[in-house]
Amino acid sequence: MAKSVFYHAGCPVCVSAEHDIINLIGAENVEVVHIGEVRNRIDEAEKAGVKSVPALVTPTGNVLHINYGASIADVKG
Amino acid sequence: MAKSVFYHAGCPVCVSAEHDIINLIGAENVEVVHIGEVRNRIDEAEKAGVKSVPALVTPTGNVLHINYGASIADVKG
Repeated sequence: MAKSVFYHAGCPVCVSAEHDIINLIGAENVEVVHIGEVRNRIDEAEKAGVKSVPALVTPTGNVLHINYGASIADVKG
Repeated sequence: MAKSVFYHAGCPVCVSAEHDIINLIGAENVEVVHIGEVRNRIDEAEKAGVKSVPALVTPTGNVLHINYGASIADVKG
């Protein structure tokens, strides 16, 4: 299975969702990207359609915004 | 693995998210409940903490609100 990408920004909502997603789909199936730290991937997240974090981009390119931690604008600061 | 429960109300956002979740975690690992039709489970969803659909309640009881289709109040009508 192609990997999903989980974008987050270290917020409590993000960390909680990250644990849930990894439990559900397996750590080997998801790349976790902290766009608060790896800032040169913010642009990639936006292009994928991520409006807020935490969000999971599926192997088919769909974006699942999970709960609500922060907007991309907040992450950009 | 205990099953997750995916609550939805048949909206386009719900159907899209349902396909993604089933692809990601496997149909055998998720019970799909259409609370627009199975209305006697709306109460169960609310007690689990579901505020809007689509939402996934994990085996550990966490609620992942995925994107946004409709509020529980909308579903109640």
